[in-house]
Amino acid sequence: MMAVPSSRTPLVAMVGGGQLARMTHQAAIALGQNLRVLANAADEPAALVTPNVVIGSHTDLEDLRRVAAGAAALTFDHEHVPAELLEKLVAEGVNVLPPPQALIHAQDKLVMRRRLAALGAPVPRYAGVESLDDLDDFVAGLDIAEDAPLVVKAVRGGYDGRGVRMARDLAHAREVAGEYLAGGVPVLVEERVPLRRELSALVARSPFGQGAAWPVVETVQRDGICVQVIAPAPELSADMAAAAQQLALRLAAELGVVGVLAVELFETPEGRLLVNELAMRPHNSGHWTMDGARTSQFEQHLRAVLDYPLGETDAIAPVTVMANVLGAAEQPAMSVDERLHHLFARMPDARVHLYAKAERPGRKVGHINFVGSDLTKLRERAELAAYWLAHGQWRAGDDAEQSDVEERRKMPDGWDVHD
Amino acid sequence: MMAVPSSRTPLVAMVGGGQLARMTHQAAIALGQNLRVLANAADEPAALVTPNVVIGSHTDLEDLRRVAAGAAALTFDHEHVPAELLEKLVAEGVNVLPPPQALIHAQDKLVMRRRLAALGAPVPRYAGVESLDDLDDFVAGLDIAEDAPLVVKAVRGGYDGRGVRMARDLAHAREVAGEYLAGGVPVLVEERVPLRRELSALVARSPFGQGAAWPVVETVQRDGICVQVIAPAPELSADMAAAAQQLALRLAAELGVVGVLAVELFETPEGRLLVNELAMRPHNSGHWTMDGARTSQFEQHLRAVLDYPLGETDAIAPVTVMANVLGAAEQPAMSVDERLHHLFARMPDARVHLYAKAERPGRKVGHINFVGSDLTKLRERAELAAYWLAHGQWRAGDDAEQSDVEERRKMPDGWDVHD
Repeated sequence: MMAVPSSRTPLVAMVGGGQLARMTHQAAIALGQNLRVLANAADEPAALVTPNVVIGSHTDLEDLRRVAAGAAALTFDHEHVPAELLEKLVAEGVNVLPPPQALIHAQDKLVMRRRLAALGAPVPRYAGVESLDDLDDFVAGLDIAEDAPLVVKAVRGGYDGRGVRMARDLAHAREVAGEYLAGGVPVLVEERVPLRRELSALVARSPFGQGAAWPVVETVQRDGICVQVIAPAPELSADMAAAAQQLALRLAAELGVVGVLAVELFETPEGRLLVNELAMRPHNSGHWTMDGARTSQFEQHLRAVLDYPLGETDAIAPVTVMANVLGAAEQPAMSVDERLHHLFARMPDARVHLYAKAERPGRKVGHINFVGSDLTKLRERAELAAYWLAHGQWRAGDDAEQSDVEERRKMPDGWDVHD
Repeated sequence: MMAVPSSRTPLVAMVGGGQLARMTHQAAIALGQNLRVLANAADEPAALVTPNVVIGSHTDLEDLRRVAAGAAALTFDHEHVPAELLEKLVAEGVNVLPPPQALIHAQDKLVMRRRLAALGAPVPRYAGVESLDDLDDFVAGLDIAEDAPLVVKAVRGGYDGRGVRMARDLAHAREVAGEYLAGGVPVLVEERVPLRRELSALVARSPFGQGAAWPVVETVQRDGICVQVIAPAPELSADMAAAAQQLALRLAAELGVVGVLAVELFETPEGRLLVNELAMRPHNSGHWTMDGARTSQFEQHLRAVLDYPLGETDAIAPVTVMANVLGAAEQPAMSVDERLHHLFARMPDARVHLYAKAERPGRKVGHINFVGSDLTKLRERAELAAYWLAHGQWRAGDDAEQSDVEERRKMPDGWDVHD
């Protein structure tokens, strides 16, 4: 008798119960799966929405084994799993994707810088800092003035701008680096590159070696946190866009990435591209793909780790703008439910994604996509919508905007009935 | 001290654990919620993907109370909950949406026919049948020939063409109706209307009374089951489309529907529209909205039952074609995982939605959307893709199609690296 093939598709396990896992579960549902997540607590964003939850720590080998058991692939919502634990899992036969030897480049900024430099990829000038003398040598060796600004970074563990400190000058850099080193935190120093803006080249790669690149986007930062993403990056020449995509695809291949790779880029005033950071998972700069691209980064990440052929990456409209909803400094008086109600009343075109996270100042608690063709208008709406959803107040000076809401094919009862 | 508002949005409970609940949960995630479902078993499509599951029966008052406890609204994945149980829940303060007095029109075809006739909505000529004499009277009264075809319907409980029987003539109708009546099943008879095609007008309505209509679609039926949906319906005049939308919005208001209402329509060769059936929940004819409209029917249903303002219903592309994946007569040799792999290799633009259901002949186990602008090509691709996913075989005669796959921005490693 022939065995009856399963009506389900394979199980993917993800380390981390944050919003990236939450949205990956949404994508998993369409593929006939559910996502298994390793969450620290039952109220984490992903743990709230999938029935397949292991509560535990990403630094505990037993917990990692539990979440990986029987999964076709083990992948990540964040970069914080120690490489030595991942090596052990690989030795035990777990299909860890991206593999630890790729992931290390998203975990350790110094390893990444050295590897990229060796590959001839453009990066800011940098040096590892083991003592304050290394800092002095770096500045002396590069012929940078002592009052030139520098960037001091913790080699590991940073995200959302944490672990990255802007130093006014060498003296300030010595102070910052001294604090880190005194705390036993390895450090690197970089020149502070003059920026035109920041870009992100998002690609995916499968074990088979297929690559797929989404349009290159601009990421708008405020206080080191991404507040808005514009897809595609406005006024980026076709040549530069292609160069950024090819750089990202090349890095994915050279580093052996499987899954989504985000290459965060600096664009200099002279039009050079320098690699800032790498992330090997669905990334904030790819949230626009949920509503603005044919295949979302979350589905693509699953397809990649399952070695399925990748989906089309085309934008479905001329412009998509994504705005992060960042927790307000003061807890809004209005519940998120009420805020959502008002937002929908004013902007029926808003595509809202909430993470069900407690609201803390500056914390990413959701994002909103606007898809259309008028860049200026979409950016304005995204800014307004995200501010409203975070604060429960409309920004000053935007009270004339209401009339903009399109009411086509929407009407209260009686529009065509009672007269 | 001010109470801290919840970071979560309200809970919606849905009776039924099928694919409609499964996809509603996907939409709930974006709204910061999770969906609570009442499922018959833990392996039902929705029960597999949400952590908030009550296992029980939709005909058991206690189970209904359990799933409704604490929910902002109780809504439905199917129409099979007895009205008297819903009335009890309403009396106990449960916010049942659509309310029982609206839902009855999707539960009882005779109640629906009578109400629609009273409202002056166009319906096929019909009669309730309590005895075979009623059949004879119906035919005699309408001056239909005795060899004219008729439709005999069970008044309750049908779906996917079940409970609807085509009778060749009066004698055959008497035979079919006799079987039903002998089994205690109430019956109605209708004239068999000559069809140009079938359409569906999908709308949503909120308690506030806001209505929103998606573009009217054509539903392509085979053996009484919908196999394909084309959005918008090709070559439908703007006047007829508007008439269908306004009819559906009017019925939603008159019947007091809250949530999604699907009005299944016959288009006659003379260009008349007649109401065939009503469904008060997300509906197969609206699955195209997941990839082809700005707001999906699943999000809209949630917004409606929560009395949120409704989302934009515009199509995001000139044409979307949805094809149902219907279980093959013989279990395919290839697993669904392998079939999916091959499908993605050939059609990177396919938007696949699988329900994780056991595959049985004719059973809806998933659907696939194709979004674009070339109707003929999209229909072909949808047909091929759905056939492949069901059977694990490409249909005969389609072997020249491979070259069609677009490979832009996708390349295996080395395309731009190693030479």
